[in-house]
Amino acid sequence: MRTIYLDGKKMIMREQPLDLEPGEALVKVSLAGICGTDLEMARGYMSFSGVLGHEFVGIVEKANDQSLVGKRVVGEINAACGKCDYCGKGLERHCPKRTVLGIYRRDGAFAEYVSLPEKNLHQIPDRVADEQAVFVEPIAAAFEIEEQIHTDKDSRVAIVGDGRLAQLIARVMRIRHGDMVCFGRHQSKLERLRKLGIKTKLEILPEDEHQFDVVVEATGRESGFSDALRLARPRGTVVLKSTIASKEKLDFAPAIINEITMVGSRCGPFRPAIEALASGKVTVDDLVSAVYPLEEFEKAFEEAKNPESLKVLLRP
Amino acid sequence: MRTIYLDGKKMIMREQPLDLEPGEALVKVSLAGICGTDLEMARGYMSFSGVLGHEFVGIVEKANDQSLVGKRVVGEINAACGKCDYCGKGLERHCPKRTVLGIYRRDGAFAEYVSLPEKNLHQIPDRVADEQAVFVEPIAAAFEIEEQIHTDKDSRVAIVGDGRLAQLIARVMRIRHGDMVCFGRHQSKLERLRKLGIKTKLEILPEDEHQFDVVVEATGRESGFSDALRLARPRGTVVLKSTIASKEKLDFAPAIINEITMVGSRCGPFRPAIEALASGKVTVDDLVSAVYPLEEFEKAFEEAKNPESLKVLLRP
Repeated sequence: MRTIYLDGKKMIMREQPLDLEPGEALVKVSLAGICGTDLEMARGYMSFSGVLGHEFVGIVEKANDQSLVGKRVVGEINAACGKCDYCGKGLERHCPKRTVLGIYRRDGAFAEYVSLPEKNLHQIPDRVADEQAVFVEPIAAAFEIEEQIHTDKDSRVAIVGDGRLAQLIARVMRIRHGDMVCFGRHQSKLERLRKLGIKTKLEILPEDEHQFDVVVEATGRESGFSDALRLARPRGTVVLKSTIASKEKLDFAPAIINEITMVGSRCGPFRPAIEALASGKVTVDDLVSAVYPLEEFEKAFEEAKNPESLKVLLRP
Repeated sequence: MRTIYLDGKKMIMREQPLDLEPGEALVKVSLAGICGTDLEMARGYMSFSGVLGHEFVGIVEKANDQSLVGKRVVGEINAACGKCDYCGKGLERHCPKRTVLGIYRRDGAFAEYVSLPEKNLHQIPDRVADEQAVFVEPIAAAFEIEEQIHTDKDSRVAIVGDGRLAQLIARVMRIRHGDMVCFGRHQSKLERLRKLGIKTKLEILPEDEHQFDVVVEATGRESGFSDALRLARPRGTVVLKSTIASKEKLDFAPAIINEITMVGSRCGPFRPAIEALASGKVTVDDLVSAVYPLEEFEKAFEEAKNPESLKVLLRP
């Protein structure tokens, strides 16, 4: 099958076989999404060699569970051992023996086919289109925030960023939070949020400083962390969503002086993400910037890097 | 009166008057302690100009409340407005209008006299010596940890660091936690903890990685943060105690991948600190490295910088 393979340094299109492991299902990929992590990995983050891609929707072609065959599915990206203490506590996403689709020791979804343990798959209702279902994985990451931290309906929430992930976090968090502001840098991206009734700002003003109970950092930029600390009230919470805001010079002093709780946040629960798309509580139709065939992956990655673009999809 | 004054760049001994504000008490300083923050401030942290020093014990010479006069006291270092929302919620230590003794807009205790609002003062029982009472402020900072985070008696606790603050944190946390390891770099300092029955290690071994529910970072070194993330289990908590671990290149990725909760922690409650000294639950007699008269402040600071030394005291 054709795959987009990262050889540690550069991405190439190549033919490679797919050997199905016992207990795993073979899924024909219909659509896959490019995320910020993919862009970082193409630059060397995680030192990954293999097939990239962890956001996808596809059709099951082979499975032990015959009822799965022919079904349209998305897949949780962490494949856990199922036996360790973490798996026993329902923390499969933290299993120390896990592999992670397109990120860590497991080939990903920028390919004609992908394989995952059958228990990782979730069926997609007919009323959710492929172009929506491909967003389930990052929407789940947005739902993770409220799994990790306690927020009240009345909490003042700020989101720092207006890109791919920030857009989804804003759309998920507005379900429960009326008092929310999204701080971004791109009029065109903020405009999409304003259309949904979300308050937006292009700049942090002095009157915004230390006003927010919960601040979600989703910029992927060095400045995102200090902006988040500027917005959080003393004893407030900052949720760190960008894995890419790493190895930067960060000034921790405001976090200690204001006794901020900072919570690292990664993958999340798929079920509420699918339900939110099915019910229309979360909409994503305005977030697709382009769809490319797999062989035009270089163009697709270039477009995904453009600061004005949002989600770029690959169709194998 | 004689003071140790930081003019933004260097410390000098100088004569200056002390004007008592209404509602404040005048305290004759008996002993003052040099802390890591003082060393950092002498290097420019907080851009402070004024008299340094925020750990002290002394005798009240003047006060509106006559019952205070002649009493031996220590003082909370944050002088709050008493009127804002934070003060109303009992979060005076986060009052946006606060001044902070020897740190922010308020002259400190490396002086013959110091002034503080009367409500900031706490009397010291007779059975607590000056050389013990001078530790109340940093012991309170150690008690702050368990005010902020929830720990079980069975929580596995790691402390990273073996210096002034780490020593006190270990002594406070061992009151509730039997399963605790202190990771340090100095045999002589770790030996003091071992004598108290606290488990210590000079090195983080592979079997220590990701084993601890709660990790307290109190090194003041760049490496303290990454060491803490190495020790914390997925979804565990890292308490950040060193204000000086700032403006460094820090790799945040492990915090996000393992969904670590990081909690900035600063000043704490004085009452439990005084009680712990009075009851003997926390001992500090082995932590005084030297006592200098105020005029030998330069020698005292040199000694405090020595990695082998612990608490250095100034006697005005």
